[in-house]
Amino acid sequence: MSSLTEQRIRNPEIRKRVTDAATAAAHIRDGMTVAMSGFTPSGYPKAVPVALAKRVRASGEKCRIFLMTGASVGEEVDTELTVSGILGKRIPYQTNDHLRRGINARDVAFLDPHLGEMDGQVRRGFFGSVHVAVVEACTITEEGHIVPTTSVGNSPTFLQVAEKVIVEVNTAQPMQLEGLHDIFCPGDPPNRKPIPLVRPGERVGEPFMRVDPDKIVAVVMTDQKDAPRGLGEPDEACIAISRYLVDFLQHEVNQGNLPNTLLPLQSGVGEVANSVLKGLVDCSFSELTVYSEVIQDGVLDLIDAGKISFASGTALTLSPARLEHFLSNLDLYTKQVILRPQEITNSGEVISRLGCIAMNTAVETDIFGNVNSSHVLGNRLINGIGGSGDFARNGYVSIFCTPSIKAAGAISSVVPMVSHVDHTDHDVDIIITEQGLADLRGMAPEQRAVSIIERCAHPSFRDALKEYWERSKLGGGHFPVDLETAFSWHVNFKRTKSMK
Amino acid sequence: MSSLTEQRIRNPEIRKRVTDAATAAAHIRDGMTVAMSGFTPSGYPKAVPVALAKRVRASGEKCRIFLMTGASVGEEVDTELTVSGILGKRIPYQTNDHLRRGINARDVAFLDPHLGEMDGQVRRGFFGSVHVAVVEACTITEEGHIVPTTSVGNSPTFLQVAEKVIVEVNTAQPMQLEGLHDIFCPGDPPNRKPIPLVRPGERVGEPFMRVDPDKIVAVVMTDQKDAPRGLGEPDEACIAISRYLVDFLQHEVNQGNLPNTLLPLQSGVGEVANSVLKGLVDCSFSELTVYSEVIQDGVLDLIDAGKISFASGTALTLSPARLEHFLSNLDLYTKQVILRPQEITNSGEVISRLGCIAMNTAVETDIFGNVNSSHVLGNRLINGIGGSGDFARNGYVSIFCTPSIKAAGAISSVVPMVSHVDHTDHDVDIIITEQGLADLRGMAPEQRAVSIIERCAHPSFRDALKEYWERSKLGGGHFPVDLETAFSWHVNFKRTKSMK
Repeated sequence: MSSLTEQRIRNPEIRKRVTDAATAAAHIRDGMTVAMSGFTPSGYPKAVPVALAKRVRASGEKCRIFLMTGASVGEEVDTELTVSGILGKRIPYQTNDHLRRGINARDVAFLDPHLGEMDGQVRRGFFGSVHVAVVEACTITEEGHIVPTTSVGNSPTFLQVAEKVIVEVNTAQPMQLEGLHDIFCPGDPPNRKPIPLVRPGERVGEPFMRVDPDKIVAVVMTDQKDAPRGLGEPDEACIAISRYLVDFLQHEVNQGNLPNTLLPLQSGVGEVANSVLKGLVDCSFSELTVYSEVIQDGVLDLIDAGKISFASGTALTLSPARLEHFLSNLDLYTKQVILRPQEITNSGEVISRLGCIAMNTAVETDIFGNVNSSHVLGNRLINGIGGSGDFARNGYVSIFCTPSIKAAGAISSVVPMVSHVDHTDHDVDIIITEQGLADLRGMAPEQRAVSIIERCAHPSFRDALKEYWERSKLGGGHFPVDLETAFSWHVNFKRTKSMK
Repeated sequence: MSSLTEQRIRNPEIRKRVTDAATAAAHIRDGMTVAMSGFTPSGYPKAVPVALAKRVRASGEKCRIFLMTGASVGEEVDTELTVSGILGKRIPYQTNDHLRRGINARDVAFLDPHLGEMDGQVRRGFFGSVHVAVVEACTITEEGHIVPTTSVGNSPTFLQVAEKVIVEVNTAQPMQLEGLHDIFCPGDPPNRKPIPLVRPGERVGEPFMRVDPDKIVAVVMTDQKDAPRGLGEPDEACIAISRYLVDFLQHEVNQGNLPNTLLPLQSGVGEVANSVLKGLVDCSFSELTVYSEVIQDGVLDLIDAGKISFASGTALTLSPARLEHFLSNLDLYTKQVILRPQEITNSGEVISRLGCIAMNTAVETDIFGNVNSSHVLGNRLINGIGGSGDFARNGYVSIFCTPSIKAAGAISSVVPMVSHVDHTDHDVDIIITEQGLADLRGMAPEQRAVSIIERCAHPSFRDALKEYWERSKLGGGHFPVDLETAFSWHVNFKRTKSMK
């Protein structure tokens, strides 16, 4: 037993359960529901899923499982388990190319809950029993508590409900991660308690996850880093969107609707979102806070620039260089960053109380502000709804951003009717494209349509949208739609590869 | 000054402001935003709106206002103000025939927020300034506080933000209503506090609404009763739906998923909802609680039957006979009934904490469980989304009920794609029609479609739905839809008055 193992596994009884990945993976069998840690490719197990895939490929045995995670995980999980045919069912949000193909071929059944709701639904038994949980840890404490690594996600719940637990202790994750996390479990009705958070930076829980030590059937030592993805430089459209957003926030401050510290910021994942955060580096706001799912590059930049005083999330989703920088300066960052369970970061209760400014990305919006976040042409999943619905539904103001055109102008992101609805117009206050910003607050459907067409649509699609809108109005009603041609743009695109 | 006035207006300064309705209505002028009490035709002002309409009709003056209420109000408000051309803009949920016509002709701009979100949005200024609030009161206390009558709705917020306040003291409402209400204001970000409610029956606020007495510009004495609507006897379909629902709840209790006291019940308004409550009279559950918007006949029946120990709502929506019964037995009922502001009854925070069983009515559902609650054929408003989204989004389990066919079988309530989305499939767990119950929890879209078609669709539409589903699958994808024919049933109905 190495001193490294002793340092990382401080409970001597649990230390005896260290084994290799293949032995641990033997606990996973056909028909099981398996829950793994991880949220955006951070803090996911890296050895057991690979060993499982290897075993199944070698033996040719039938092994189909239902896999739960916090959100998207690394290739060691989703690629390995998809290509080896192990994934029968998967929940929730994912970003893996192989898995996406499997889901869209309906080889893999996919469930897409709001990320903030999943913990509770797992505990209520909506998805049946959880047979094995595989959770990456930084350390196991003397008491047998588990300190997570670069994400928390749904792991506290998985540890609570799983029949068996496998821990991957990852020595590539620095020990100083201990203390970064704040684990609070609100419990369930009828005995659920208020979540006492009233400021993004408050600590209300414990720095570790509790688990019944008797359930830990195996511990595997690993030393492999997370494989986060880098983001490209923002393009012109992203920069323009970001300017409109900052101008809007400045206007709200000038009007006295928001303090100069704004309200806690939430931003989705991806290039538009990251660019929006970058746009805040030169703003006149100060002492900003973040209450979001992910701590991404843009957040770190704002902390470094002295703009953000505190950031709360459930995962670090940093590009490789920024992750290295973060982990090398943990002593500094742990004063300004906290990782929580996703049922807390994405809790409607807390988001509503703090008054988060919700900034998310749309795949497409219609002229009323119904938003599609997840499916191309109505049927093909991209990633999933993620936490966008948690924040859009409960935030102080709900903003959706998208470039007005895609595919070199063949696709308009502003359409007569969205081909899939993730967020209804009730939950969408502001639409921003590089063309402009539509402030829909206080507007009836008719005004919303005029505003979105005029301010957000690309000029090359604006006349066609106006034509659709005039035609819809002929049919009358409070919410004019022309059901005969509402999807004609999408149908056209399927045939000609252009919405025009 | 009569002793009745002294008894009802205990503050002598405010008592001096008693005047007639016409004088009070003179404060309301063209271009103003006017906020009135009332939630489902209960507790709305009855004299000032009528006097306003009379004045405008007599003078021929231009007077268009933006009217805010808690939810639907009586004819004295919505009919009078619509037919006299005073309503330019209206928020939120309504049930008035004249107003509905005005909205669908787009003569009246209509905003349809989630009922639980509106208070906060008003205070944030999403809808601009509120010039005058007109609020029905039972009494005005020595301190100048206002005791509401049969509903609370958004009135505490209206009193807080309005520049001028007119109070209608209604002597037809019994004095014993004092003590029925519990007014708690959570405040706004960044200083919003947790709502401390952890049981439906807890009192966490004050029995009156606060207002700056200097803002009260007029008090009008009235003695007119609320004009609630009676509900018909449940038909066969309603009774069948109610049986499936009770069986489902019983099954959940048997499985150990729910205690025998269930969790707090929420039910929408209307005949299906009332029938569902009636179905619980003979159930084996006990000590039930209600945490809902409205206290309707079915709730009172269950209290009388000893099944419900406590009911919390924001309004009494009783048939005339039941309202009379309630008001005559107030001493009894105030131990088991409480009225709260709608931002508390419909608070996502509280609904989620208590774990409400959300039971709402669908206009139509599609094969994936997306639900339309508000618009016929996509464009014509019926009533509005109401609070269904507050409960469906935050409840422990979200149930939608609808008869499988309407219009003597010409319309299927289960359609390929809903023509308007109020609730996405993420927020819909159970669909019930008189044909059966589809439990969609843990199901991917493909399984949801098969289950809804098999269990919920009417046999006369089932084959056509299967055909659509098979055609959709040919297009592939995780969420198979055929955009070319998705609305063909609705389009067909427009042409032939039948979806067949």
